Amino acid sequence: MKEFSSIAKLIDSFQRLPGIGHKTAEKMAYQVLEMKDENVEYFADALREVKSKIHHCPICGAYTEDDICEVCANDMRDKTKIMVVSYPKDVIAFEKIGAFDGVYHVLGGALSSVNGVTINDLNVSSLFDRIQQQKVSEVIVATPPNTEGETTALYLARILANTGVNVTRIAYGLPLGGHLEYADALTLTKALEGRNKI
Amino acid sequence: MKEFSSIAKLIDSFQRLPGIGHKTAEKMAYQVLEMKDENVEYFADALREVKSKIHHCPICGAYTEDDICEVCANDMRDKTKIMVVSYPKDVIAFEKIGAFDGVYHVLGGALSSVNGVTINDLNVSSLFDRIQQQKVSEVIVATPPNTEGETTALYLARILANTGVNVTRIAYGLPLGGHLEYADALTLTKALEGRNKI
Repeated sequence: MKEFSSIAKLIDSFQRLPGIGHKTAEKMAYQVLEMKDENVEYFADALREVKSKIHHCPICGAYTEDDICEVCANDMRDKTKIMVVSYPKDVIAFEKIGAFDGVYHVLGGALSSVNGVTINDLNVSSLFDRIQQQKVSEVIVATPPNTEGETTALYLARILANTGVNVTRIAYGLPLGGHLEYADALTLTKALEGRNKI
Repeated sequence: MKEFSSIAKLIDSFQRLPGIGHKTAEKMAYQVLEMKDENVEYFADALREVKSKIHHCPICGAYTEDDICEVCANDMRDKTKIMVVSYPKDVIAFEKIGAFDGVYHVLGGALSSVNGVTINDLNVSSLFDRIQQQKVSEVIVATPPNTEGETTALYLARILANTGVNVTRIAYGLPLGGHLEYADALTLTKALEGRNKI
């Protein structure tokens, strides 16, 4: 019995998700066949909506459904402190715990010789622009606690040295090699509190 | 930071898939945000296509993209042997190993007092119609090896007793309490070979 082309296409799509192998993707695809029509419509709509409604904040690069993100639009946030993160979801991780009252800057990745990510692939020049255009006293580098994140942090410390801005790094409360988004609230809070000058 | 409504909708959809909890669904939803537009389009299309193109064969109830399924449309298949299964994906499991040359009949479930599945919820009358309309010598009951599947098998044996058809049950080569679709090829083959008259 040949595999249906539409099922193959769906299995293919599920496999693009993190941690999903062929067998699991197959199981999911057949589960979709058993779902009610309206639930599958809802699912397909949600996929499209997520991509059409959510975009990057033009100021910081975080995810937003509005013109500019909630953090940048909030006058109560301390605009003199900018936390630099690698990915938009890292902003969500910090916002969930509510331990930071400054604003963010999303680089869009981390320097990596292995994956060929150079400084030109990251939103660094816009960080410079922000520092020049407004009074920034501290840049907290919260890139991931791995080789790429460390390299990026050291690089930023070096190129920001002449700007007069205090460059700090969140503390090694984070488990090495881990992902920011999976860290628990306490670990993230401790890491923020224990930040040091690079 | 409030959760975006479109992300919440997508997390909700991922959670309907087998074995996916909230944390995993959330991870998947944010992964979708990072995907290329065309891949998300492809994903949404695949979901819709699966539901619009694949339907149940009007004869046996298996999945098909054509008017009638590949097995029912094949003149080389032995139409005197009907294998009764609970779900359409069970047909795919048997077809993958190619150990059966007869045709199928999908009940659409199994009798269950717990879930309130009665004989009226299963495609049993159409099985009777098929037995009356064509020469059928054997009905092989391949419902799952659990309480519901056993109850269904015994019930079918009882109501088919007067039709003169040989009713058999696939052997207990299948691990008890397991799911047909996850069984390996050898177990499925052994179970088929060792079938007994009920």
